[in-house]
Amino acid sequence: MKALVYHGLGKKALEDRAKPDLRAPGDAIVKVTKTTICGTDLHILRGDVATCAPGRVLGHEGVGVVDSVGAGVNAFRPAERVLISCISACGKCEYCRRGMYSHCRTGGWILGNAIDGTQAEYVRIPHADTSLYPIPPGADEEDFVMLSDILPTGFECGVLNGRIEPGATVVIVGAGPIGLAALLTAQFYSPSEIIMVDLDDHRLEVARRFGATRTINSKDGRTAEKVRAITAGRGVDTAIEAVGVPATFLLCEELVAPGGIIANIGVHGTKVDLHLERLWSANITITTRLVDTVSTPMLLKTVQSKKIDPKPLITHRFRLDEILDAYDTFECAAGTGALKVIVEA
Amino acid sequence: MKALVYHGLGKKALEDRAKPDLRAPGDAIVKVTKTTICGTDLHILRGDVATCAPGRVLGHEGVGVVDSVGAGVNAFRPAERVLISCISACGKCEYCRRGMYSHCRTGGWILGNAIDGTQAEYVRIPHADTSLYPIPPGADEEDFVMLSDILPTGFECGVLNGRIEPGATVVIVGAGPIGLAALLTAQFYSPSEIIMVDLDDHRLEVARRFGATRTINSKDGRTAEKVRAITAGRGVDTAIEAVGVPATFLLCEELVAPGGIIANIGVHGTKVDLHLERLWSANITITTRLVDTVSTPMLLKTVQSKKIDPKPLITHRFRLDEILDAYDTFECAAGTGALKVIVEA
Amino acid sequence: MKALVYHGLGKKALEDRAKPDLRAPGDAIVKVTKTTICGTDLHILRGDVATCAPGRVLGHEGVGVVDSVGAGVNAFRPAERVLISCISACGKCEYCRRGMYSHCRTGGWILGNAIDGTQAEYVRIPHADTSLYPIPPGADEEDFVMLSDILPTGFECGVLNGRIEPGATVVIVGAGPIGLAALLTAQFYSPSEIIMVDLDDHRLEVARRFGATRTINSKDGRTAEKVRAITAGRGVDTAIEAVGVPATFLLCEELVAPGGIIANIGVHGTKVDLHLERLWSANITITTRLVDTVSTPMLLKTVQSKKIDPKPLITHRFRLDEILDAYDTFECAAGTGALKVIVEA
Amino acid sequence: MKALVYHGLGKKALEDRAKPDLRAPGDAIVKVTKTTICGTDLHILRGDVATCAPGRVLGHEGVGVVDSVGAGVNAFRPAERVLISCISACGKCEYCRRGMYSHCRTGGWILGNAIDGTQAEYVRIPHADTSLYPIPPGADEEDFVMLSDILPTGFECGVLNGRIEPGATVVIVGAGPIGLAALLTAQFYSPSEIIMVDLDDHRLEVARRFGATRTINSKDGRTAEKVRAITAGRGVDTAIEAVGVPATFLLCEELVAPGGIIANIGVHGTKVDLHLERLWSANITITTRLVDTVSTPMLLKTVQSKKIDPKPLITHRFRLDEILDAYDTFECAAGTGALKVIVEA
Repeated sequence: MKALVYHGLGKKALEDRAKPDLRAPGDAIVKVTKTTICGTDLHILRGDVATCAPGRVLGHEGVGVVDSVGAGVNAFRPAERVLISCISACGKCEYCRRGMYSHCRTGGWILGNAIDGTQAEYVRIPHADTSLYPIPPGADEEDFVMLSDILPTGFECGVLNGRIEPGATVVIVGAGPIGLAALLTAQFYSPSEIIMVDLDDHRLEVARRFGATRTINSKDGRTAEKVRAITAGRGVDTAIEAVGVPATFLLCEELVAPGGIIANIGVHGTKVDLHLERLWSANITITTRLVDTVSTPMLLKTVQSKKIDPKPLITHRFRLDEILDAYDTFECAAGTGALKVIVEA
Repeated sequence: MKALVYHGLGKKALEDRAKPDLRAPGDAIVKVTKTTICGTDLHILRGDVATCAPGRVLGHEGVGVVDSVGAGVNAFRPAERVLISCISACGKCEYCRRGMYSHCRTGGWILGNAIDGTQAEYVRIPHADTSLYPIPPGADEEDFVMLSDILPTGFECGVLNGRIEPGATVVIVGAGPIGLAALLTAQFYSPSEIIMVDLDDHRLEVARRFGATRTINSKDGRTAEKVRAITAGRGVDTAIEAVGVPATFLLCEELVAPGGIIANIGVHGTKVDLHLERLWSANITITTRLVDTVSTPMLLKTVQSKKIDPKPLITHRFRLDEILDAYDTFECAAGTGALKVIVEA
Repeated sequence: MKALVYHGLGKKALEDRAKPDLRAPGDAIVKVTKTTICGTDLHILRGDVATCAPGRVLGHEGVGVVDSVGAGVNAFRPAERVLISCISACGKCEYCRRGMYSHCRTGGWILGNAIDGTQAEYVRIPHADTSLYPIPPGADEEDFVMLSDILPTGFECGVLNGRIEPGATVVIVGAGPIGLAALLTAQFYSPSEIIMVDLDDHRLEVARRFGATRTINSKDGRTAEKVRAITAGRGVDTAIEAVGVPATFLLCEELVAPGGIIANIGVHGTKVDLHLERLWSANITITTRLVDTVSTPMLLKTVQSKKIDPKPLITHRFRLDEILDAYDTFECAAGTGALKVIVEA
Repeated sequence: MKALVYHGLGKKALEDRAKPDLRAPGDAIVKVTKTTICGTDLHILRGDVATCAPGRVLGHEGVGVVDSVGAGVNAFRPAERVLISCISACGKCEYCRRGMYSHCRTGGWILGNAIDGTQAEYVRIPHADTSLYPIPPGADEEDFVMLSDILPTGFECGVLNGRIEPGATVVIVGAGPIGLAALLTAQFYSPSEIIMVDLDDHRLEVARRFGATRTINSKDGRTAEKVRAITAGRGVDTAIEAVGVPATFLLCEELVAPGGIIANIGVHGTKVDLHLERLWSANITITTRLVDTVSTPMLLKTVQSKKIDPKPLITHRFRLDEILDAYDTFECAAGTGALKVIVEA
């Protein structure tokens, strides 16, 4: 089968690989029909992810059709259409029982990282009963690809952790795909203001189309001042960090109101300054989270009932044999305007 | 009347001052019967608290007897015994309605800071209806002095924010009075382990008497290793920071388990490093809080029903005209073993 | 001044009454500009409300302009436009501190019940600081009349108590004004389904315009069967009772799924059968509540930011000297299609 | 093997039965070392449990040693000591993912009901990975028998649903084994008062030894009056129903304070009157629950760390071949003083 293989720092190739086999009673083999590329895949290629060894098939998102299942799989049968969660969860360990699938003792984010992933014609899914979800008849497969990772990540790490409430004021720093996923799902809770902050005017325009009530280009360094003006001097109830660098986290520290929450989504590569000399008495909460995908059943319902439309997140489409072009398009998002790219296997 | 007055960096004096008058309909004048000294008073004397101007009567804790009340005070009458909350709360502003009395628009921590305080024979209490509490007949006044600040601070900032549950593992870094207050009130929720960390063996011995299940002297730099050994390698569910310096906050970052909480109590004078390059994916929560004293009614019930005994927090007793000695004793806690000192007016 | 006065069972009259005076430091006198009629006013006229004595000026909703304030009122000044809450709250008693304004020791629902109400040119508002809300410049007064009672009632008793979540299934039994207020505010949380149940096809059509995803006329007795068909046999996550008779509460018992909630809004005059022989093992929750109006600040923000449009609740408008016609129109809702009527003073 | 078999209304016998076999990959066969008898077993014998057919081996509690496991079992190996949960949970279905194991699509309370149970030498446990718990080395097996059902039932249905807080007032109606389990676990949260109500003075004396702060014999019909006297006229924050008949549920309706909770544990055979004509405005919550045993990991920690001592719940001990005597002793609790009886297999 064809598969996109990581070959160490900056190197990847579309190759022929053997079709995966069932290894444990809980495994399923899924024929991938649509997959996509994540910012984390680019992190791997930059050498940032130590757990991902050369030779690994990349990819942790996608939808497909069940090809075969192990003896311990009860919930799925061959030929059923399924959504692949980016997080594998045994459902049994202490972390899974607490809903922290991201820290599953034998799962977590392993697809396209510690084991071969979804940017291929077939993929082996461990703990299939608790790591796949049925796609209802008539549902749009592309929408469901957005449920593998980006929507639960924006929702769980940004919106749920940010405890957004009707009438609240929200800032989202970073209008990339993940910030936009937080923007889409924040609207489930009817906040009064969702202020989107970015350095790129095009992304901010996209954000307005996605429902941002205001946008601020932060390049003039006056974001905090502008947010105070909007919020009667108080700051925001929830500040969502969706970039992953010290400057954007520091901005969130400046923007959050007393009693507010900083919900971090960004993947950080370095420490940040936490200004406790000011914040110790500000009654704030800071949260971090690797997506658990425990909200996938809830998100499925919101997509099916049209409370959210993930389609506008998809900007480009490729075939699997064009996946190197897809990477180029996704990587040069500033030039191509790419958000999420669909790759059809 | 006699009053302990702050005179700028490092200077204080016991002086004669005019007895305070009612200024607003919501004010009460309280004759102080017992007060105490807080670590924050020492911060003021070190010049760390910009809002406290020279000439200010210090003190924000105490019990007393109502002397007179304004026309708008409904809940109290002269001659009633009362507990003085360290936080003044109007009960009406947006913050008070959300239970964030610490950020009351016209209150918060103002006693012995922005207005004259309790280390005097009389004190004016604004917003008396929502800033005083009745002392039930027969109750021990000394116990109630511990309810002005130290018990609600340990409880709200450490225990409530730390969401301690039955069977949980807890670390408290800092075995001073505030760490001990967190230790006492953490036991309301029956955690399995409360590990107390400090540099002073005497304080750790006190901590064991107060209910710590284990103690660690952190001077050998092996605290994280020892806590991992106790917690099967996971770290603790809740890490309470009760010191206020970067090293102890950093230790909490090392000790907290995935899914855990760092509840900050310490008053920090400088920023700290937040290691998001490791913690971004650890599903942790960090909280800060200036005590709101919203839990005072609950704590009153636990003291009255003997669920907690605040008495061992009190190590020394002085008369108001000995208050300079009381400061010396409290300040040299390492030598005197002082926790809280009672000053009788 | 003109006032609508209750004269015992079935009797009311528009009369001349003395303008009210300030009685306590916390009082305000408000010149009423717009008021409305509530189902509870009809209950009083039917003799159901023992606390309301003949001679009482009716009405507990409205907006107006501050005429005068007592010495203890800090938040309001004469000539300011204000929203009058149906619940008076001292902000200080044990219940107010817990957000249960409905059970305030010296307040609660007293307007137009234990003290004279708003269906008059002027009204005295006790505890004005915590029972009035400022109307922002430019805001529509009529919208704000809906914030006195009906919107917080539908929201707090139905939606908040019903813990509605994105993707959830909701039934609202009763499509009268209060059921419609629950319907409007339930949409803050993006449930998948809001099924409206009533006996009146016209009201169900109105409900569809207000956002119901489905409607069921319950007169054929097959409502439970239909709801099971919609919910794959499970029942609903939240059943909101918005009528107040045994039959509709029993229907909610039939409709609620395992793990679900019955949130009662209805004013009941008689006991109901609770089928614990079936429900003891169904992991359900039943809640009751007299509106606390603690959500009024939140609801104000949602109205100002256009997350909700209360206007369609208003079907008729009258002058104060036409208030008897207004009562007739409101009482004969089946014929007139009346939801809420505005009475201009 | 020997097994206690149900033979229809009022009939049971100790018989020889074939040792059970593994049927599904997730099954385990457990050699039972200690089991016990539950009030529900008596319900079955009275014909109250339609799902339990004649020929069924009774019993849903116990500890044992793993004899064999299916290919899909990962967490347990033969010869390991295990606690058997009264609830079987697949860990995968919609209900299990929400922590509602009691409503597991292929589990729930099936042991000794829909499938053969634990009052035998061997038992087949479906979904073994999520329905068994390891017994730590050195732990007391008898204590762990109390963790199969009675402690999680008292804790989840009574204490967790009753949201007991430090300083709260609690009533528990019914001082049988399940009421006492609620009493023991309620103390995790340090309420001020736990008032135990029963008709039997001996049981009330036992309750005092278990930690009740007050006891009331309800036979004089003055319980509500006495509870009002204790609670300054308000009623209790939490009323736990631990009997299962209309009179005791009605008593809880009388005892609960505004804003309080009625947490039902009792197994009811008939409907009860819910006095909504009084309670509609009382801001109360009523909960029902079949135990989910999701709290078992937490309870294990509290037992291991000695926060709770289940031993006093055990009053009698028998061998498996004396199990008919054990039933007699348990059934005649009024005469024998039996709480829980241990049966050694």
